[in-house]
Amino acid sequence: MIFLSKFPFKTQKTAPKVSDNRSTSILLQAWFIRQTMAWVYTYTTLWLRVLEKIKNIVREEMNNYSCYETLMPALSPRELWDTTGRWDSIDVMFHIPAANNKEYWLNSTHEEIVTPLLQEFIKSYKDLPVCVYQIQNKFRNEKRAKSGLLRWREFVMKDAYSFHADDEEFVKYYEWMKQVYMNVFTRLWLANDTFIAQADWWTFTDKYSHEFQVRLDIWEDVIFYDKTNWNCFNKEVAPSLVWVQNQLESELKERQDIEAHWVIWVDALVKTLGIPAEKSTKTMMFETEIWDFIVASVRGDYDINTLKLQKILWCKLLKLASEEKIKEITWAEIWYAWIYNLPVWVKLYIDDSVKWLTNFETGTNKTWYHSINVNFGKDLAIPEKFYDFKEAKEWDKNPETWVTYEVFKASEVGNIFPLETKFSASFWLTFLDENNKSKTPLMWCYGIWVSRIMWVIAEYFLDDVWIAWPEKVSPFTHYIVVIWEENIDKAVKFSKILNINSDDILIDDRLSVWFGQKMSDAELIWIPNIIIISPKTLEKGGYEIKKRWNKESELVPFSF
Amino acid sequence: MIFLSKFPFKTQKTAPKVSDNRSTSILLQAWFIRQTMAWVYTYTTLWLRVLEKIKNIVREEMNNYSCYETLMPALSPRELWDTTGRWDSIDVMFHIPAANNKEYWLNSTHEEIVTPLLQEFIKSYKDLPVCVYQIQNKFRNEKRAKSGLLRWREFVMKDAYSFHADDEEFVKYYEWMKQVYMNVFTRLWLANDTFIAQADWWTFTDKYSHEFQVRLDIWEDVIFYDKTNWNCFNKEVAPSLVWVQNQLESELKERQDIEAHWVIWVDALVKTLGIPAEKSTKTMMFETEIWDFIVASVRGDYDINTLKLQKILWCKLLKLASEEKIKEITWAEIWYAWIYNLPVWVKLYIDDSVKWLTNFETGTNKTWYHSINVNFGKDLAIPEKFYDFKEAKEWDKNPETWVTYEVFKASEVGNIFPLETKFSASFWLTFLDENNKSKTPLMWCYGIWVSRIMWVIAEYFLDDVWIAWPEKVSPFTHYIVVIWEENIDKAVKFSKILNINSDDILIDDRLSVWFGQKMSDAELIWIPNIIIISPKTLEKGGYEIKKRWNKESELVPFSF
Repeated sequence: MIFLSKFPFKTQKTAPKVSDNRSTSILLQAWFIRQTMAWVYTYTTLWLRVLEKIKNIVREEMNNYSCYETLMPALSPRELWDTTGRWDSIDVMFHIPAANNKEYWLNSTHEEIVTPLLQEFIKSYKDLPVCVYQIQNKFRNEKRAKSGLLRWREFVMKDAYSFHADDEEFVKYYEWMKQVYMNVFTRLWLANDTFIAQADWWTFTDKYSHEFQVRLDIWEDVIFYDKTNWNCFNKEVAPSLVWVQNQLESELKERQDIEAHWVIWVDALVKTLGIPAEKSTKTMMFETEIWDFIVASVRGDYDINTLKLQKILWCKLLKLASEEKIKEITWAEIWYAWIYNLPVWVKLYIDDSVKWLTNFETGTNKTWYHSINVNFGKDLAIPEKFYDFKEAKEWDKNPETWVTYEVFKASEVGNIFPLETKFSASFWLTFLDENNKSKTPLMWCYGIWVSRIMWVIAEYFLDDVWIAWPEKVSPFTHYIVVIWEENIDKAVKFSKILNINSDDILIDDRLSVWFGQKMSDAELIWIPNIIIISPKTLEKGGYEIKKRWNKESELVPFSF
Repeated sequence: MIFLSKFPFKTQKTAPKVSDNRSTSILLQAWFIRQTMAWVYTYTTLWLRVLEKIKNIVREEMNNYSCYETLMPALSPRELWDTTGRWDSIDVMFHIPAANNKEYWLNSTHEEIVTPLLQEFIKSYKDLPVCVYQIQNKFRNEKRAKSGLLRWREFVMKDAYSFHADDEEFVKYYEWMKQVYMNVFTRLWLANDTFIAQADWWTFTDKYSHEFQVRLDIWEDVIFYDKTNWNCFNKEVAPSLVWVQNQLESELKERQDIEAHWVIWVDALVKTLGIPAEKSTKTMMFETEIWDFIVASVRGDYDINTLKLQKILWCKLLKLASEEKIKEITWAEIWYAWIYNLPVWVKLYIDDSVKWLTNFETGTNKTWYHSINVNFGKDLAIPEKFYDFKEAKEWDKNPETWVTYEVFKASEVGNIFPLETKFSASFWLTFLDENNKSKTPLMWCYGIWVSRIMWVIAEYFLDDVWIAWPEKVSPFTHYIVVIWEENIDKAVKFSKILNINSDDILIDDRLSVWFGQKMSDAELIWIPNIIIISPKTLEKGGYEIKKRWNKESELVPFSF
């Protein structure tokens, strides 16, 4: 059993206001965490116990079904990151100047360490598949909090890396790992609201790139979910079909070119020209490493999702075209470069949100001018194909089922991403296949945001009072309130007959704290079972037990 | 049970030569560790299991007897270190440039974090004593390996910090913590060779500043031990009495001043003038924050221990006097400034190694000149007092007992240091005592070098073959060698009836590895019990067991 007098613990009378989530306030009030600096926390004994319990659940599931734990360092030399070109390309990383003119990386991820590590091991197809995982502190040089407290500068993560001879072998492994992850979230009581969402991916594979998202109103990710076929997408990649608002007009009007100085945003268009956003278009020009110049257009009330566009264009680089380039090609100032009146040779991509428009607006490719009452087949050639590169919005439909998505906020608690051969190729990691031919293994990585899960649990199980801990991760299962020094012995004796892990019993043996404070502290940290041993209960020959889940209390006689 | 096929493991045929210690070579050969960069290691599954077992032993002993675990961050803001003035004064620290023009410290120690943390808790004498500890990754920006592999850039440490109302309260706590530490080392089978040595200390307290040193021939610290009274000192602070070599000559000769150009080191003196080192003196001039100029002299075969001298002078700053200053005061070039012929007003400290010299040599305080046949009471005033500020040497005696020290090398595995009020005062941490008066609490810190202990154990238990693991920290207690796939089931079934923690059983289920390789791997990682289940043993209806400690093997019939 653990004695409360043996670690610093002092609750606050009220919850400090610190962020957009109530759980963090309460965690501060109840002495679970202390802030050392922005997004860097000290874990008190209470919170550390929650962390360790979650780590052990992750560990047990990983060990039982996939692979065993290893531990890579937090520091790594610059040379490894130069090999993959990531030293300069990831901007949220800590670069550390070190003795002897060296530079180190404070690791936020470990592909550059695990690949050379496994290079020594993987020689033949017989050595595959192989997987290693670790539970480790990660660091990110964050500029600002993206959303509340989910982005830290220092956090605990479980990261695993697997190596495979071929895709087929991986698919089996992937299904296996998905099950391991769902086992973890089931044990954490989160599985009912955990969605496996298709996510952004580094490579061009769109299979097997998934985020495990827990539905929670206040967090950062937006999920598009179709319950008819369980399709689930992160907003970043969600395919979408517009809610067609019956805009097809039977009469195709005559195109008009209107002079309108400095009307360059959709808002201004709506206000000045009185055109509804859904009858306007939004156009942007890009350069890619393949195409010198491409034009993309969506309906005015949508935005372009560059990630989706990139995948259509099959390009790694997608950057806005320069003003000079736009003027050179369209003869118009950047703000008036649009789809109407474009040189015919320009590669034009039109989103399917524009498909059902008649008599719509577009820029004229002539400075100061907008065209209205533009129509396909009349003023513009009908494109061979319409695409889907709009940023999905609420009320949009899943193009596969034509069913309107359910849209909600969620927090990512895990992910599986394909690394393909990006890292194995960079480090020249190869193996000999069954025919003695040299091949490059495929790599996958798997993450669980261990310390973030602590906050997700705190927020998820928050009721009107406070956190109703799942018993498996509660810092303690039993909190024994003892009044008077001479009764501490009784509490210890009683703990021994409880027949549970003695480490899960907290005895509030503080002598300088009164009964009232002990009771309010016990309720504030909301251990599932509160046991009171006081002169009053002893008079009746027993103890009182209060249970969190049914909110009842009961006087029980001692049986020893 | 743990299956060897589920983590990367490939031993090397021979042990790579990497350092001055055999254990590291063997750890590399046996796939326990991999080097990510100089003094930064990846721990494989095997080595991580050793680490976790040691951590748990430390944790259990700390929890049982002193306080409970907490976890402070690895990053901290520069401001905290500016408050104590340590940002610039500790040179082996990583300073990290961060976003928004901030600077962080990658913590190598946590006084600057724990003091403000406890400030919120400590208000009254009733809140004292209080202690927190953590087991955490520490970082040091080491320029070079001081000795083999004991200094790392990244390592695991248990550090504890206690706060006390007064000295008396601390003394009780200190004795308690010393017992906790010895309990840890006993469980790690190291206690028989663990010495509690008095060590260097930050403050002027010489009580309660101790290092726990494990006797090991190859490591960095040198220990002076007097077995008659168990006095034990780190060389840095060992008091010493010279082995008097009967140098008192009855006839006091006439002093002679000899011109000897460029004879400025004791070696040259011995060679050129034929004077034995033990009949010469070595003198240095210093400035301190209290004394403008002081002169210190030891016998020629000794060195001055500036730490010991500093404690005699009771000064924080002790630096060599400049050439100009020396010339100004002694009228001699720096190399000839010595104790003979000094202006009488100069503060002169003479080590007791000089006390029994007759007819000895010293510089003359006249450029190019040495004086020989110098004698106290004749050429030099007899000092009121002789001091002990010589660097202790082998064959020296303990001044307390006049017993010759036993001198040996050792590795520090733990320490207890007084911080007094250095940090509590810097952060204005105060509490109200029983009379409602504001006081500054005393602080102490306690370290255990957790990851270093792993290496100490590996080296300490090395025999002619390899490491004979103490069972409590061995990565596994049982290694089951299985031949043929169909026998794996038998191994699993057998493991279940072994009635030990199933995680401690390693089943070598690798299919691509032959029996011979499995046996040599099993011996290389030297798990205490090796069990062989092969067609040969099965034919005889059982398994073979080989025990590490008695080196015997036995055929045992299956009982299931």
